[in-house]
Amino acid sequence: MGRLSELFTPDRVAVVGATDREASVGRAILENLREGFEGEVVPINPNRTAVLGVTCYPDVASAPTVDLAVVVVPPPAVVDALRDLGESGVEHVVVITAGFGETGAEGARRERELESVAAEYGLHLVGPNSLGVMGTAVGLNATFGPDDALPGSISFMSQSGAFITAVLDWANEQGIGFRDVVSLGNEAVLTETDFVREWGESDETDVVIGYLEGIDDGQAFLEVASAVTTETPIVLVKSGRTDAGAKAASSHTGSIAGSERAYETALEQAGVLRARSVQELFDYARALSGLPLPESDGIAVVTNAGGPGVLTTDAVGDSSLSMASFTDETIDALETALPDEATAYNPVDVLGDGDVERFDRALEIVLSDPNVGGAVVVSAPTAVLEYDDLARTVVERAEEHAVPVTTSLMGGARSRAAADRLREGGVPNYFDPARAVSGLDALATYREVRERTRDEPTTFDVDRERARAVLERARSRSDARLGVESMELLDAYGIPIPTGEVVDGPDEARAVAESIPGDVVMKIVSPDISHKSDIGGVRVGVPDAAVEDTYEDLVSRARTYQPDARVLGVQVQERLDLEGQTETIVGMNRDPQFGPLVLFGLGGIFVEVLEDTAVRVAPIGPTAAREMVDEIRAAPLLRGARGREPADVDAIVDVLGRLSQLVTDFPAILELDVNPLVVGPDGVQAIDLRLTLDTEVSL
Amino acid sequence: MGRLSELFTPDRVAVVGATDREASVGRAILENLREGFEGEVVPINPNRTAVLGVTCYPDVASAPTVDLAVVVVPPPAVVDALRDLGESGVEHVVVITAGFGETGAEGARRERELESVAAEYGLHLVGPNSLGVMGTAVGLNATFGPDDALPGSISFMSQSGAFITAVLDWANEQGIGFRDVVSLGNEAVLTETDFVREWGESDETDVVIGYLEGIDDGQAFLEVASAVTTETPIVLVKSGRTDAGAKAASSHTGSIAGSERAYETALEQAGVLRARSVQELFDYARALSGLPLPESDGIAVVTNAGGPGVLTTDAVGDSSLSMASFTDETIDALETALPDEATAYNPVDVLGDGDVERFDRALEIVLSDPNVGGAVVVSAPTAVLEYDDLARTVVERAEEHAVPVTTSLMGGARSRAAADRLREGGVPNYFDPARAVSGLDALATYREVRERTRDEPTTFDVDRERARAVLERARSRSDARLGVESMELLDAYGIPIPTGEVVDGPDEARAVAESIPGDVVMKIVSPDISHKSDIGGVRVGVPDAAVEDTYEDLVSRARTYQPDARVLGVQVQERLDLEGQTETIVGMNRDPQFGPLVLFGLGGIFVEVLEDTAVRVAPIGPTAAREMVDEIRAAPLLRGARGREPADVDAIVDVLGRLSQLVTDFPAILELDVNPLVVGPDGVQAIDLRLTLDTEVSL
Repeated sequence: MGRLSELFTPDRVAVVGATDREASVGRAILENLREGFEGEVVPINPNRTAVLGVTCYPDVASAPTVDLAVVVVPPPAVVDALRDLGESGVEHVVVITAGFGETGAEGARRERELESVAAEYGLHLVGPNSLGVMGTAVGLNATFGPDDALPGSISFMSQSGAFITAVLDWANEQGIGFRDVVSLGNEAVLTETDFVREWGESDETDVVIGYLEGIDDGQAFLEVASAVTTETPIVLVKSGRTDAGAKAASSHTGSIAGSERAYETALEQAGVLRARSVQELFDYARALSGLPLPESDGIAVVTNAGGPGVLTTDAVGDSSLSMASFTDETIDALETALPDEATAYNPVDVLGDGDVERFDRALEIVLSDPNVGGAVVVSAPTAVLEYDDLARTVVERAEEHAVPVTTSLMGGARSRAAADRLREGGVPNYFDPARAVSGLDALATYREVRERTRDEPTTFDVDRERARAVLERARSRSDARLGVESMELLDAYGIPIPTGEVVDGPDEARAVAESIPGDVVMKIVSPDISHKSDIGGVRVGVPDAAVEDTYEDLVSRARTYQPDARVLGVQVQERLDLEGQTETIVGMNRDPQFGPLVLFGLGGIFVEVLEDTAVRVAPIGPTAAREMVDEIRAAPLLRGARGREPADVDAIVDVLGRLSQLVTDFPAILELDVNPLVVGPDGVQAIDLRLTLDTEVSL
Repeated sequence: MGRLSELFTPDRVAVVGATDREASVGRAILENLREGFEGEVVPINPNRTAVLGVTCYPDVASAPTVDLAVVVVPPPAVVDALRDLGESGVEHVVVITAGFGETGAEGARRERELESVAAEYGLHLVGPNSLGVMGTAVGLNATFGPDDALPGSISFMSQSGAFITAVLDWANEQGIGFRDVVSLGNEAVLTETDFVREWGESDETDVVIGYLEGIDDGQAFLEVASAVTTETPIVLVKSGRTDAGAKAASSHTGSIAGSERAYETALEQAGVLRARSVQELFDYARALSGLPLPESDGIAVVTNAGGPGVLTTDAVGDSSLSMASFTDETIDALETALPDEATAYNPVDVLGDGDVERFDRALEIVLSDPNVGGAVVVSAPTAVLEYDDLARTVVERAEEHAVPVTTSLMGGARSRAAADRLREGGVPNYFDPARAVSGLDALATYREVRERTRDEPTTFDVDRERARAVLERARSRSDARLGVESMELLDAYGIPIPTGEVVDGPDEARAVAESIPGDVVMKIVSPDISHKSDIGGVRVGVPDAAVEDTYEDLVSRARTYQPDARVLGVQVQERLDLEGQTETIVGMNRDPQFGPLVLFGLGGIFVEVLEDTAVRVAPIGPTAAREMVDEIRAAPLLRGARGREPADVDAIVDVLGRLSQLVTDFPAILELDVNPLVVGPDGVQAIDLRLTLDTEVSL
């Protein structure tokens, strides 16, 4: 139990602004509270002596001490009410009243006042503009919605109050129960991160689910959720996934929706299961709240119907699961136990005349197979099959073997009683076999989350001061954009760069060239010229003797091409042998919600046309870096497809780690691209750099 | 009405093998028939005078004339029964009896006998091993399943009888009705193609749906389905989509599942909507059977709940639809009609206190907008919203405007009466807003199918005899594999190839080289050496003077490398300027079900690593060929990404059409690859060829 548990399990609740006025929010809340709440309800209203037959107090000070207050007074009275509550030592408050940040300047001002009073008194405050909270442990319904929640082990938060009312009636019908429910409202104080933490610490919550439109402090959420998902699964609908949806979400909440790529990456990194629809949210939640985790991905399908059996197998093929390969013992046992025409392979077909007993025998055999991590029982209704008995048998077998089992006892009215029985036994039943599989898939995905290697970022031995000096030098030129002249930054963080220097005279250029064996590469260096090759600003294979002339030529080209361009000099660099090398890109973009997003991809068309890139929120450990390299579609090229020598993936992983450290050390770096990072069988070299600094952030 | 309509609307039905034995199939069918059938039932059984109180006849000859016979006699008696039926002039027969092709050699022999009797008498025969047929127009349930179907306009075929029983109980509960239902059984005579044709010709069938595990004659199905989908939508679950599913399907039906890529392509080409699950199948069918087609893809969302509105918008973003852009008039009208805090943009939020009247005003306005092709009404339950009234209003408005509208009146028990009312008015209601959108998406997809350009394949002026001669030459070498030596084949079909010849001596090589301006390319030609460059068997840029020596060198390399390789000579070819050209691949694979599958992709890694290819079943018209070029992920490269000159796409389209004609003209061509087909801004050149001939098929 965390510090917020009293929000959901209070002994005494005050309703500040309680009223019996018909169709008022204050009355609706009072009625909901009176219905099943085990504790005491204390109406507060200076104009009443009793509300709906309950003794009413003029103010908080004169009322008995409460451990939760629900505030429904008009907007201008909220801040005073909070101050009174704070003075009386009430810590947990839900502000139902709307008319704050969601309604323009006056509301925003009022919300800032609310925040400051809440901070002054250390209030744990939900809202404002909240539907309220529910805690089924004590029968608490402190919302103005039309439905109570059934008790259960799913805790549920939503940035949309309507989303809660929209699903509760349906959930009740489906028998889906909840532990705690909170409508987050404007999140002036308590946010999704606080409730994830709270429920992560609670033994009574088996699954955290939520409907979110945005996450304000992405890094905090990522950190908390990553820790919670090691013990408790989190399933979220994060809406605004699509461009259209993001636009709608931002007009709905007034907040900036943020980049979908960042959300996708961060939620995945945090181990959050993401549902794309209401149905998926509850399909996943039902499986995660009632079933054991599978020990392997092998699924057994037992059915009395060939067609639905094939459909189920397709659904397994679509998922991250696989069809279990039965042991020889299992196949022998099935062959003995079932009629000749039955199928003893997976999917097991007990045939259309299969009764409960035959299902039972088959189920018992496959659940004993060490290769079976989970099972789906799929049936069409027949004259010989009693669905109720089948349900009881499935529940018993599943319990005995502690293996997750879902069912699709297909049918309408015919299957209802069986579905209820299955649910009571913790086995979710779905009409569509594909959904029965997706429930198991959620379990397997969550098992993978729990088993994940969560390695700490490597701390590399870097020269932070030298890097800071490079950034400061750029900023002292009042320049937010850095280029090849600042490659030393990479060197300071141990990212290999070719030998070379930026020089500002032909003699110096010659001297540098002579210190480098062989011909050199020369490039004009100017923050104002981004496409250097287009103006002939790059020369490859310049012999020492031609270096001075080339220097003059490059500078004069730059002047002709763009007279106002600041020319910082010419880079003289060793010429690399690019035979057998692959051009890759590593980079970073700072997301407003989640911070630095590190990127990896192959160069050229792979990024520009195919958008084949992998991203992670920094800081990242070596496992995540290696996953990035593996997950791009073109990864086989690096592993040595088409007869190529495999690239030095370890060196890429090393660079990604160093880059992660660099952008974490310097929040002033807004964007950074190393393009190309040339990768060969024996290492990498960063060839070019572009970087943008945030001039508002200190170095 | 087609020739099979009597299967579903008979006046008098014989049950051959009728019995009153408890739990027998014969009895179940008789009971189902007696229940609602408007016509007369005639039991046939030599051992009874009456069955279940109905007069029984000893044989078909002595019974009144029937127009449909259902056969349930034991397997060995089926063929005789069919002969009797044929002699009596009965044309339509359903064979329920199992124990034929699905059960081994004896059964297969029996099925061949059945086929031959059916052919002899021209029987329209369903089965054997069928659950039976239903025709709701005359209350016919000639199945042994437990449920009747409700009447409706969806006709339903299934290769799995269990699939029918599995969904009927559920469909009845959902109020989903059917016109004709057929369990296809072993398809000894009538197949899915026959029923697609039949229902395409029927005015009473609005939608054809089906569960299929395989399609035997793919080309016939493709042709019939392509014609039907211009008027009647077809939605299919084709199972065995995944590797696991295909394996399960093939063990279930004993047939070879065939290539999923071929099915995917062919069904898409035929304009068939493919559902991935039972739920999708019926979600699509419900929308297609009751709603008008949208005139545009712009969708309006009207809701009383911000969160669910955003979710719905995301679902639109996921679909092929888009959020409608309202006209200024619409926005003005909404702003006038709705409270200030409401959203007059799309999604329209009528707010949590929105009543039916407010929904009505908003709906009326958005449905009048010319940019709105369809609408979704999404609501959370509130104290002020009467779901029943809302349902009535939605039905009325949708009818008035003849615009497709789906709803998600979220809730459980609370929304049931409203859902019934909506269904009666032809508006499908879904708990999950995402499914409400997917219903509209199915409509839009089907509209696109109807509007599709279905151009005939171009008939190119080709030299078919010359092509035949090339193929015959190869075959006379008893060689099933052709290579560069057969490039003339492409030339005969007007596909550009570089100037050159295959020669078998150094002098001849020199002579050819001298006839070609500039240096030449020389390649060893041998059907046994597939990777020529690996053995140094390719030389680029050979000057005329070096041609003889190069010839000798190439031949001796081939001998050294692979002494038993048949060397057909050396190809001497003009050297192409490949600057600014792109390597592509065109090819063909012959699928056992669907015939020639034509393929297009970019060369090298795009095919080998990224598998970025487009395929179509030949023959194809120019529109399909152009779509192939457009649909590969790397298509932007051909259109001129990264500052390249756009490639000559017309020339690729031309080659694809010619290739389509070639492989259609010569069914003996099993596989063919032109790799690379080099494409530049001004045309294409086929550089290399590999082809495999089927030696069993005549040229």
